[in-house]
Amino acid sequence: MRIALAQINPTVGDIAYNTQLIRSAIERASEQSAELVVFPELAITGYPPKDLLLKPEVLRQSERAINYLATRCTSTTAVIGYPCLNEGSTGRSLLNAAAVCSEGRIFARHAKSLLPTYDVFDESRYFEPGDEAALTELNGKKLGISICEDLWNDRELVPRQLYHDNPIEKLASHGADIFVNCSASPFVVGKHDFRMQLFRNAARKHHLPLVYVNQVGGNDELIFDGNSCVIDASGNVIVQAKDFEEDLVVVDVALEARSSKLEARISEPRDSIAAVYEALVLGLRDYCRKCGFKTAVLGLSGGIDSAVCACIAVAALGAENVTGISMPSRYSSDGSKSDAHLLAENLGMACHTVPIEPAHDAMEQMVQPLFEGHEPGLAEENIQARLRGVLLMAYSNKFGSLLVTTGNKSEMAVGYCTLYGDMNGGLAILADVPKMMVYELSRWINTPGSCPLWDSSGAKPPIPIDSITKPPSAELRPDQTDQDSLPPYELLDQIVERYVEREQSWRRIVDETGADAEDVQRIVQLIDRNEYKRKQAAPVLKITGRAFGFGRRMPIAQRFDPSGAALSDLIG
Amino acid sequence: MRIALAQINPTVGDIAYNTQLIRSAIERASEQSAELVVFPELAITGYPPKDLLLKPEVLRQSERAINYLATRCTSTTAVIGYPCLNEGSTGRSLLNAAAVCSEGRIFARHAKSLLPTYDVFDESRYFEPGDEAALTELNGKKLGISICEDLWNDRELVPRQLYHDNPIEKLASHGADIFVNCSASPFVVGKHDFRMQLFRNAARKHHLPLVYVNQVGGNDELIFDGNSCVIDASGNVIVQAKDFEEDLVVVDVALEARSSKLEARISEPRDSIAAVYEALVLGLRDYCRKCGFKTAVLGLSGGIDSAVCACIAVAALGAENVTGISMPSRYSSDGSKSDAHLLAENLGMACHTVPIEPAHDAMEQMVQPLFEGHEPGLAEENIQARLRGVLLMAYSNKFGSLLVTTGNKSEMAVGYCTLYGDMNGGLAILADVPKMMVYELSRWINTPGSCPLWDSSGAKPPIPIDSITKPPSAELRPDQTDQDSLPPYELLDQIVERYVEREQSWRRIVDETGADAEDVQRIVQLIDRNEYKRKQAAPVLKITGRAFGFGRRMPIAQRFDPSGAALSDLIG
Repeated sequence: MRIALAQINPTVGDIAYNTQLIRSAIERASEQSAELVVFPELAITGYPPKDLLLKPEVLRQSERAINYLATRCTSTTAVIGYPCLNEGSTGRSLLNAAAVCSEGRIFARHAKSLLPTYDVFDESRYFEPGDEAALTELNGKKLGISICEDLWNDRELVPRQLYHDNPIEKLASHGADIFVNCSASPFVVGKHDFRMQLFRNAARKHHLPLVYVNQVGGNDELIFDGNSCVIDASGNVIVQAKDFEEDLVVVDVALEARSSKLEARISEPRDSIAAVYEALVLGLRDYCRKCGFKTAVLGLSGGIDSAVCACIAVAALGAENVTGISMPSRYSSDGSKSDAHLLAENLGMACHTVPIEPAHDAMEQMVQPLFEGHEPGLAEENIQARLRGVLLMAYSNKFGSLLVTTGNKSEMAVGYCTLYGDMNGGLAILADVPKMMVYELSRWINTPGSCPLWDSSGAKPPIPIDSITKPPSAELRPDQTDQDSLPPYELLDQIVERYVEREQSWRRIVDETGADAEDVQRIVQLIDRNEYKRKQAAPVLKITGRAFGFGRRMPIAQRFDPSGAALSDLIG
Repeated sequence: MRIALAQINPTVGDIAYNTQLIRSAIERASEQSAELVVFPELAITGYPPKDLLLKPEVLRQSERAINYLATRCTSTTAVIGYPCLNEGSTGRSLLNAAAVCSEGRIFARHAKSLLPTYDVFDESRYFEPGDEAALTELNGKKLGISICEDLWNDRELVPRQLYHDNPIEKLASHGADIFVNCSASPFVVGKHDFRMQLFRNAARKHHLPLVYVNQVGGNDELIFDGNSCVIDASGNVIVQAKDFEEDLVVVDVALEARSSKLEARISEPRDSIAAVYEALVLGLRDYCRKCGFKTAVLGLSGGIDSAVCACIAVAALGAENVTGISMPSRYSSDGSKSDAHLLAENLGMACHTVPIEPAHDAMEQMVQPLFEGHEPGLAEENIQARLRGVLLMAYSNKFGSLLVTTGNKSEMAVGYCTLYGDMNGGLAILADVPKMMVYELSRWINTPGSCPLWDSSGAKPPIPIDSITKPPSAELRPDQTDQDSLPPYELLDQIVERYVEREQSWRRIVDETGADAEDVQRIVQLIDRNEYKRKQAAPVLKITGRAFGFGRRMPIAQRFDPSGAALSDLIG
């Protein structure tokens, strides 16, 4: 069976644009004589449409679009994800459906059975689960259709069975000849390998080939990596689409014997640090494109975070569309100022310098009558960060540039960042990247031959070496460094990963890492207490298993005591 | 049967404190010879615990707490809501359970069947639904236990049946003698009447009495109004606990004949505008108390929003704990400055004046080289709002005062507010209150005998009349008023209510209100386009059916076109 994998990059809510993408892929699949073309989950609306699904107009337009697309499926059958009204009188009002469009009409509709409702996923908020084996006949062969999570309830690989149903086993036992899976599976470092294991398992176990089509592109916090593929009945990858860009791959899949008229095409996915870089570039580029920003602005401190952000912004939007602003204060070192300009020069982007002293002086005098008799401290330090924020937002407002937030995950975790100051911005591109991984990114960027940001002579790495090697500092008071208030980042990152991503208790972290119990408790407490800052943070591009933002929903006014001491005092 | 309704105000995550509240209520119920004492849903953790439920330590401590509390139930049986591990190997790992504690042990555990997963509710994220009739025998009578939503699947009153199951009917058909419902049902204007209708229906339909115990208190965005009650088998309210405060009511409920040794106690709930006021006061007071703030600060513009906020803050924290800051600019009218001070004087709170001119001047000169050749506009206006934000945050940081955000729902809807400016703050107390309701609140506050903020002489209403009567203005440029850019608030509020709360399309709004189609489309577009601001807003106290915040989850980079024009162009 000749099958096309249509790995498209839909824009959430832009039903006309997405319909056009789908129509064009159907046409190209037909031209290459594909019998079947497969699209991602909810391709008509883009994923995740979130509460747009509550709008009756969204559903009406989706229905119009799918009906129209069905009329375009004459020689080729298409499987297209879309939100479908649940015709039953009971249950949630929608189905997360795949329409099988054939011979000019909607031939069948299948509903997703397993609705992820954890981390960033909210599918039980909208959808009623399907419960039938989703089989459709095409040219005498039975397509076994599933949608994303339907494929993930693998008893061997998934530690806890969240669902009572196993749609894949149902499809196999009902005589499917091939698995077809429409997905919208966001990028997470390391997830690709897990996916491949899962797909190979399913194919081998049931001795059936598997077609997996994933969405690609950035939608707010989520970055979809593509990496669509076909696995044969023995578990071998016979097609692998590109990562981080649109692709249309056509392949002959052997349902009985091994035979292929088309050459297999395997695009090797990038390794992990290169994938993170590419994911962040795509996430920023798509956020700008889909929101309508052509240019970006960011503060350049001379430090590592803003340097890596500048590289990503230049890669995403072009050097001519990125502006840096260096905003030295009385505490900024000469090195910081020159590193900022050197970086901009290396990248070929504009850089302005605006010392913040005039506003800083004025503000200090304004608060003086209120603060009289109090020692200067954090309040005064924050004023500097916030005045920089005012300046950057003024630039952003004036020129319609997206302000890029530069903070990393380690800072965001412990609140080592100023709300309404350096946290300002439309998109936080490093806020799910731990500090040590920021260093890794910077070294990768600076490795010859790694990334295309090197100047044409190839003589000079993009990031000034000093930005990488000097001790990190917020420069909000004389001779300040991050390590005045924080443990070494090697340790901090480990604790953050265990506490935030893996939900480990502080006790277990101490036991397993041998870290100092007081250090761990202090960090865990800082993480808990800074929820109020993160509540008001810019959207964070997600690249780990648990990012701050939509997928981590913590109360703010809460007083959980992880030590259990108060409870023990009470109940003995 | 003598039953105690324990309407407690738990703090989310504070298991020791909540356990103490529960223990003390069990003791007081025993002293009054109650056979049964009923607690709210998830009383041990407080509602909503959100992702605290993913922490193994939270579950371990909850289990310890419930086991301990069971040992305290000797003469009185208690029904206590708590998160319980799901012992099944499949399905989500928790149950939203009620433990029946009797004779010193946990006698039975029942799991909630209907798990709300819409608006602010995420229960399918954590819990596996129960599917058994939750009956427990007490002194020869069968208690039919349900948890919150279990009671809400009423075929007559709820437009769409979201669930296939009806736990109440199941309990009745299995021979329950009384319905016992543990709830955590947040306040919404007008919801109390609906609840009462629902409860009366259930009681009358099955001819069984119903005991409803709700949580009280503010937890982040949600305010729980209490209003616990008992309905007799004929649908009459025989007990009504207080609204907006903790209460313990003991009542004899007739299971066979009508008889009561205790006098019925019915606390009349407040009417709607008074309830909104009380809800906001409680929401702010509890947020401060549970986060550890003793004092609050807010900007006083002389306008109506900040005046109403000041009243609420003074009512919540006491005048001595609230500080206003008036921050006039070159565009501020004399009236605005004097109204701010008059308000503070009426309320007995401190008020400082800090003109923003020095920083405003400095910042204008700093941006001048960057902005050269561009006309002044929104960027310059926003600088003023943001400098005020810097000043207020400096005060907040210096003195550990919560900054109260003063914007209303109408502004938040259309983005008539400055991100990192007047949107700054820890809690937005009016951001779910439409402008017309802010006026209503102000008039109610100023009505003699309404609220206790009047000065002791009773001669002067708290809010200066000018603040209520003058045309609203942001005062960011000369002679500006809100109506330069916005339609009249009467119309705006109507559109916001229909579009945001009821998810009506712009077409339907035009049809049903007769409003100008262009006006409606423009407002709807403004609401859609300002999602990025609301993403970074402070938590919003919820008082309507749909507030901005946790219960409304919109994508930002989205391009849904409500007119459908682009789709029509494409597909004809």
